[in-house]
Amino acid sequence: MSFRKIINDPVYGFITIDDELISHVIAHPYFQRLRRINQMAMANLVYPGAVHSRLHHALGAYHLMGIAINELKNKGVEINPAEEQAAKIAILLHDIGHGPFSHALEQVLVDVMHHEDLSLMIIKELNKQFNGRLSLALDIFTDRYHKKFLYQLISGQLDVDRMDYLNRDSFFTGVNEGVIGYDRILKMLTVHHGELMVEEKSIYSIEKFLVARRLMYWQVYLHKTVLCAEQMLKRIIKRAKLIQAATRQPLHDFITQPSENTSLEAFCNLDDYDVMAAIKGWCFHEDKILSTLCNGIINRQLLKVQYFGNAVDENLIQEKLADASARLGLSTEEAHWLVFTGEAVSSTYNLDEEHIHILFKDGSVKDISEVDNALINQNLMGKVKKYYICYLK
Amino acid sequence: MSFRKIINDPVYGFITIDDELISHVIAHPYFQRLRRINQMAMANLVYPGAVHSRLHHALGAYHLMGIAINELKNKGVEINPAEEQAAKIAILLHDIGHGPFSHALEQVLVDVMHHEDLSLMIIKELNKQFNGRLSLALDIFTDRYHKKFLYQLISGQLDVDRMDYLNRDSFFTGVNEGVIGYDRILKMLTVHHGELMVEEKSIYSIEKFLVARRLMYWQVYLHKTVLCAEQMLKRIIKRAKLIQAATRQPLHDFITQPSENTSLEAFCNLDDYDVMAAIKGWCFHEDKILSTLCNGIINRQLLKVQYFGNAVDENLIQEKLADASARLGLSTEEAHWLVFTGEAVSSTYNLDEEHIHILFKDGSVKDISEVDNALINQNLMGKVKKYYICYLK
Amino acid sequence: MSFRKIINDPVYGFITIDDELISHVIAHPYFQRLRRINQMAMANLVYPGAVHSRLHHALGAYHLMGIAINELKNKGVEINPAEEQAAKIAILLHDIGHGPFSHALEQVLVDVMHHEDLSLMIIKELNKQFNGRLSLALDIFTDRYHKKFLYQLISGQLDVDRMDYLNRDSFFTGVNEGVIGYDRILKMLTVHHGELMVEEKSIYSIEKFLVARRLMYWQVYLHKTVLCAEQMLKRIIKRAKLIQAATRQPLHDFITQPSENTSLEAFCNLDDYDVMAAIKGWCFHEDKILSTLCNGIINRQLLKVQYFGNAVDENLIQEKLADASARLGLSTEEAHWLVFTGEAVSSTYNLDEEHIHILFKDGSVKDISEVDNALINQNLMGKVKKYYICYLK
Amino acid sequence: MSFRKIINDPVYGFITIDDELISHVIAHPYFQRLRRINQMAMANLVYPGAVHSRLHHALGAYHLMGIAINELKNKGVEINPAEEQAAKIAILLHDIGHGPFSHALEQVLVDVMHHEDLSLMIIKELNKQFNGRLSLALDIFTDRYHKKFLYQLISGQLDVDRMDYLNRDSFFTGVNEGVIGYDRILKMLTVHHGELMVEEKSIYSIEKFLVARRLMYWQVYLHKTVLCAEQMLKRIIKRAKLIQAATRQPLHDFITQPSENTSLEAFCNLDDYDVMAAIKGWCFHEDKILSTLCNGIINRQLLKVQYFGNAVDENLIQEKLADASARLGLSTEEAHWLVFTGEAVSSTYNLDEEHIHILFKDGSVKDISEVDNALINQNLMGKVKKYYICYLK
Repeated sequence: MSFRKIINDPVYGFITIDDELISHVIAHPYFQRLRRINQMAMANLVYPGAVHSRLHHALGAYHLMGIAINELKNKGVEINPAEEQAAKIAILLHDIGHGPFSHALEQVLVDVMHHEDLSLMIIKELNKQFNGRLSLALDIFTDRYHKKFLYQLISGQLDVDRMDYLNRDSFFTGVNEGVIGYDRILKMLTVHHGELMVEEKSIYSIEKFLVARRLMYWQVYLHKTVLCAEQMLKRIIKRAKLIQAATRQPLHDFITQPSENTSLEAFCNLDDYDVMAAIKGWCFHEDKILSTLCNGIINRQLLKVQYFGNAVDENLIQEKLADASARLGLSTEEAHWLVFTGEAVSSTYNLDEEHIHILFKDGSVKDISEVDNALINQNLMGKVKKYYICYLK
Repeated sequence: MSFRKIINDPVYGFITIDDELISHVIAHPYFQRLRRINQMAMANLVYPGAVHSRLHHALGAYHLMGIAINELKNKGVEINPAEEQAAKIAILLHDIGHGPFSHALEQVLVDVMHHEDLSLMIIKELNKQFNGRLSLALDIFTDRYHKKFLYQLISGQLDVDRMDYLNRDSFFTGVNEGVIGYDRILKMLTVHHGELMVEEKSIYSIEKFLVARRLMYWQVYLHKTVLCAEQMLKRIIKRAKLIQAATRQPLHDFITQPSENTSLEAFCNLDDYDVMAAIKGWCFHEDKILSTLCNGIINRQLLKVQYFGNAVDENLIQEKLADASARLGLSTEEAHWLVFTGEAVSSTYNLDEEHIHILFKDGSVKDISEVDNALINQNLMGKVKKYYICYLK
Repeated sequence: MSFRKIINDPVYGFITIDDELISHVIAHPYFQRLRRINQMAMANLVYPGAVHSRLHHALGAYHLMGIAINELKNKGVEINPAEEQAAKIAILLHDIGHGPFSHALEQVLVDVMHHEDLSLMIIKELNKQFNGRLSLALDIFTDRYHKKFLYQLISGQLDVDRMDYLNRDSFFTGVNEGVIGYDRILKMLTVHHGELMVEEKSIYSIEKFLVARRLMYWQVYLHKTVLCAEQMLKRIIKRAKLIQAATRQPLHDFITQPSENTSLEAFCNLDDYDVMAAIKGWCFHEDKILSTLCNGIINRQLLKVQYFGNAVDENLIQEKLADASARLGLSTEEAHWLVFTGEAVSSTYNLDEEHIHILFKDGSVKDISEVDNALINQNLMGKVKKYYICYLK
Repeated sequence: MSFRKIINDPVYGFITIDDELISHVIAHPYFQRLRRINQMAMANLVYPGAVHSRLHHALGAYHLMGIAINELKNKGVEINPAEEQAAKIAILLHDIGHGPFSHALEQVLVDVMHHEDLSLMIIKELNKQFNGRLSLALDIFTDRYHKKFLYQLISGQLDVDRMDYLNRDSFFTGVNEGVIGYDRILKMLTVHHGELMVEEKSIYSIEKFLVARRLMYWQVYLHKTVLCAEQMLKRIIKRAKLIQAATRQPLHDFITQPSENTSLEAFCNLDDYDVMAAIKGWCFHEDKILSTLCNGIINRQLLKVQYFGNAVDENLIQEKLADASARLGLSTEEAHWLVFTGEAVSSTYNLDEEHIHILFKDGSVKDISEVDNALINQNLMGKVKKYYICYLK
C-alpha cells in the first residue's frame, strides 16, 4: 500500500498527501513555521474567525493544484508524475518567504526584499537540504520550465493561490459573498498553445470571481479598521527600530540591525509569536508613541480611521496632529506617528498586467474584458483609490 | 402558551409560524396547491436538484419578511402587529396566482392575465372567505397603504421575494456563485422618508446581489437547455389548444375554451400534475408535432438549441425547417412548431424601472449606480439580448 | 478529448459522467422516468424541501461509487476499467424498479413483486437493448461476480446507496442531525479477503452513521404525519382497485387488472404524475371513502395520527370507528378505511442480517458491535416498534 | 436609534450586540485577552483549522444565549430585560478565567485553582470596575439567583457553552460528524418548575447531541496526537518551573514563583503568545529535556503515542525508558519526562452528575436515559478509559 495521509479541512473536507517527498517538505520546520503565521494579519480584530494560518492556506492551494492537474490530465493535457509532484511542491512553498503577519509587515521587518524573493531563497535552501529533489519545482516556480501553464497555475490570474485564499478567507471571515465557484472554474481550466485558459462556459463564474475579489478587498482586506490596525503594526516595528526598543531573539536582530546583516536562518525562525510577545512587552515601554500603538493593538483600542473619496483635508490633519500633541505631550513631528494619512488602492482587473483568456468552442481566444456584454469594462479596469486618515480617538 | 409551528427548511434552518391567521392561510387548499407547482419549471432537466415548490419559496419569503420587519423595528421604524401580520400574509400570497410551471406557461394557459392579476383576484377571494381579515394585506399588496416601504418589501429592487428565490434557486441548483449575502442586506435595510433603502455599508453586498442575479439569469434561468425545454412546453399547450387535443379536467377547459370562459375556481385546481399527466398521454398522440414535443419533454430528448450574439442566420433557419419537414413529413408552416427562433433578454439593473437607494451616514441618498466606483455602469444597465434557434437534433 | 459531462449537485458539488455507455444508460427513458418519482414519497408534507427525485439519488450514489472505487484502487485493490464501469452502472440502476412514490406504494400497485425484482427485470431488458453491454453490471448486481466487495458497495451495510440517501435526505429535509461523515467513511473503506470492510480509525464515524440513520428513521421516514400520509396513499390505491375507480392509462391497467396481467413496458411508463393526477380526479369521486382520502392528500387535510409504546387501546379504536361511521354514514367495516392501526418498526443495527466489519491494524476483524466500548449494544440491536392509530380529525 | 453592532461569524452568520453595557464588557482588555487564547490548545497540530480563539467561542455562546432566551420568552417564560442582560454577560464571561492554552495548562501554570474559580475572581473584579452593574450576572453565574434555569443555561447538560463549543469545534476542525442540531434543541427548550428541560420532540436531537459529543471526544479532544502534544506542553511548563528556566514577564513570575504569590492582574496579562514565545526560546535551552520537548512542539516532531484498552505493559515502558536514557544520556528518572503513561477518560452521559430532563406532553418528566428505546444505556453511562504511552520516536 502506498504512502497516504489525510488532513481534515473545513473548506474542502479532506486533503490527501500521497507522496513521500511532499510529506517530508510539509514536515520540514521551515514549512511548519507557517503554522505560526496568521494568513490575514490583523483582520481578526474585525472578523474574529479570521485566524487561519498560512500553513492552512498552503495546504489548501496544494489541494486545488491536485484537482487542477487532474482535470487537465483528463482533458488530455500531458503532465507526467514528476511534473505533478513538482507543481504541488512549488505551490506548497509559494508563500514560504512570508514573515510575521505576512503582507502587513512585508518590507518593514526585512526591508530589502519582497516575500517572493525570500520564498525563492528558502526554496533554494530546501532544495540543497533535499539533495536537488526540488529542482523541477524551482524551475516551475521561477517560470523557467517550458510548460508555462504550470507556472500560471501558481502565479497568474487564475492561479490556485488566489482561488484558495478567496475561498478560505471568505470561509473563515464568514463573508459569504466572497464565495467563488472554484470547483466550476477548476473544471473549466484548459491549456491552449501551452497557456492556461478557461472554457467559454465559465465566463460568468470568472466574472463572479473578479467581483468577489473586489468585494473581499473593500469589505475585508481594506476594511478601514483592519487597515488601521495593520498600519499601527507597521509603525510599531518602525518605531521600535528607530528607538532600538529592547526585545528578545530571534526578533532582536531584525529590530536592531540592518536587514542585510540578518541571516536566512534567523528569518526562518521568526513568526507572529515573536512579534506579538514583543508588542505585549512594549505596552509598558517608556516611549509613549510605542506604548500607545502597542496598547492599541493588544487591547483593541485602535486609532480612529476615516475613508474619503479625495485627499484628506489638510485642516483636519492639522487639527488631529495638534490634538495628539497636546494630549500626549508630543512634538508635531512625533505626533505623525499617531496621526497619519495614506491611500488604499485596489483594482478589480488590471488590463496592463492581467489577462484571463477565454477559449471559445470555435478555437478563438478572447480576454475576459472583450467578450460580449462583459461585466469587466473601463470602469472596473482602472484602479480604485481611497484616502484615509488615522488619528487618536 | 401562544400558537407556534416550526417548519424545517434546508435554506434557513427553521421557519416559525406563530400566528393563527397565518397558519390558516397556509392550510388553505389554494395555498397548498403551490406544493404542486415547481418553482423553476423545467430547470430540473439541467439542474436535477431544482425541484423545489412554489410553496417552499413562499414560506421562505415569509421567513425573510419576518427578519426584515424585525430589523426595521429594532432600528426604530414603527410597524404595529397588524401591519406585521398583513405584510407577512401579503408575501405568502404574492405568487398565489401562478399556474402550472409558473412563468413558463404564463399567458399561455390563461392568455388574458399576468400572474400578478390572478394573485390579486385570488387574494380578494380569500379575503372574502376569511371575512375581510386579509384587507390590510390586500392594501399593502396593491401599494395602497401609506407605509410604502411595506409594499417595497414585497415588490421592489430589494424585496424579500427576490432575495428568497435567488437564495433558494442557487441552493437547490447547486450554483453556489448565485449565493447572496441576504442576511447582511437584511441587516442593512432602513426606512428614510417612508421609502425602503439600504445603509452605506451594504454597497458591496448589493453590487454582489446584482451580479449574482445576472449570473443566475444566464447560467440558470436562461440556460439554453432550460430555455429550450420551456419553449417546447409552451408550444405543447399552444398546439394542444390548436388541435383541441383531448385531456381531462381540470386542464380540459383551459385547452378547449377561451380563457375568459374559465373560472377562478377551476384555475385554483390546476397544477403541474395535470399538465405533466396530459403531456404523458400526448406522447402517443397522432399529431406528430404534439407527440414529438411531448416525447421530448418526457424522455429528455430535447430540441437542439444554439445561442447567437446576433439575429439567427436566415439560411440556417431554412435549412433546419427543410430538414424537419422532410424527416417528419410536415409542411414548412407546420415545421415552425419544431424549428423556431427567439430572443432571450436580461438586464442586470435597469435604471428606467429600478432604483436601489443608498442612505449615507450624512443623510444623503444616492442610487447604487451613482456611488463612487460603482460596479453598475452604462454597460450593465442596458438589456442584454441573445438570439436563439431551436431545431430537431 | 474524452467524453465528459458535468452535472451540478447541491449535495456533492459536481457529478462527472466520463463514459459514453454510462451516459447512454442515463439518457434512456427508463432512467429518465426516475425524474418523475419522488425519492421520499409523502415526506414533503412535513419537510417541504424533500421533493428530490429518485434520479437525483441514483446520480448521487453513482458519484459515491466513483469515489469509493478510486479510494480502493489507491489502496492497491485491483479493479479494472470494465469492473468500474459495471459497478457504476449497477448502482445507477439499483432502484430502476421503483414505481410511483417508491416504497410507499411498493407491493400495492404491483402486488406480486418487490422493487428489487423489478429492478432486475428492467436491467435485463436494458441489457438486451444495449446488446449485452450491461452483463457484467448484471452479474455484480445479482452478487454472482467473484469480487464480492463490488456487490457490497451496492447492497450492504456500508453501500453507497444508503450513504447517498442519508446524505441527500438530510440535506433536502434540512434535518442536519442526519448528516454523516460519508467522505471519511469512503476514505476508510478497504477490502480484506475479498470483503468490504472499514479501517479501525473509522469506528466513531460508523457509529455516528448508525445513529444518524436511527434518527432519520424516527424523525423523518417514520415521522407520524409522513407515515399517516403514506398509509392514506396506500389505501387510496387499494380502495380504487376495490371499487374499480376510473382513471387513465398507464395507471388504468394497474388499477383494474391483476398485476400479473400488466406489462413491464407499462410499468416503465408509470410515475408519480399518473398517481397524483388520478388522486386529484378522485377528490370528486362519489365513493366517500376514496374522495375523503384523496382530498386529505391533495389539500393536506390528513387523518389524525397518534403513536403509542404499546398496542392501541381497543376502546379508542372502537370510539373512532363509531365516530367515522356516524359522520360519513359508513358501515363499521367501511369505517376501517379511515380508522386504522398498525406498527412502525425500525432497527438501528440488526445483528442477524447486518455486519459492519472493522479491520484492525493488527489484521484482526471485528463486528462494529464487538469493539471496545461499542455504542451498538443489545439495546440498539433489537427492533424498535411503535404502534399507531389514524382516524378522522 | 438604539446601540447596535454586528459581528460576522462563520458559524452563525451574524452576532448582534445591542446593549451598551455588554459592548463595554466585550471591549474590556480582560475580555480582549481571550483573543490570544486558542480555544483548542494543541488540536491544530492535527486539525489545522482549529485555531479559533476563546473570544470567538464566548461570543458564540452569547449568541446562543440570546436565541435561547428568546425562545423561552416566546413560550411564556418570564425573563425581564435585566435578567436577559445579566445572563448574556454571565455567559460572555464564563471562561474569562482560562489561561494560556486553556484546559491543557489548567492547574499547571496556576496550580491552586480551576479556571472556574479564576473566572469568578475576574468577574468580581470586573463588577467592581463596572460599579456593581454585573452583580446580577454574578448571582446567576454562581447559581444564587432564584431562576435556576438561567444558571442551567450557562452550566448544565444543555448549556449554551457546550452547544457552542461542539458547533464551533466541529466547524473549525472540519469534523462534520460532530455537528449537532443546536437550533432544534434551542427551539425545544422549556422551563418546568423552574428547571430547564426539553420537549418530548427533541429526544432524537438530544441523543444525537450526546453521540456527537462522544465522537468529538475520541476523534478530536482526545485524539492521540493532540493528547500527546498537550501532555508535552504540560511537561514543558513543569520542567521549566523545576529548573527555573529563564523567560520574560508576564510568564516569568508564574514559572519562578509559587502560584499564591502571583497576582490576578498578572494572570490577566498572560496568554498563548507568552507561552509560545518562551517555548521558542527554550528550543535552544541547555537542558536537553526542556529543549527536546520544546522542539517537538515548535517543529511538530512529537513523541510517539499509543493507546491501549488496558494498562500499558510494564516491559514496554522499561524498554522505552532505556532507549530514551541511552539516546539522550539521561538518568532513568529524567527519562520519565519523555517516556510516560497515563489514562484518557470520557463519559458520554454520567448518570451520577448529569441529567437531561424530557418534559412529555402529558406533563411527566423523564431522564433521557429512561425514555423508551433509549440510546443512552448502561453501556454508555459508564466512563470510557483508555491507556496511553508516549515515548521518543
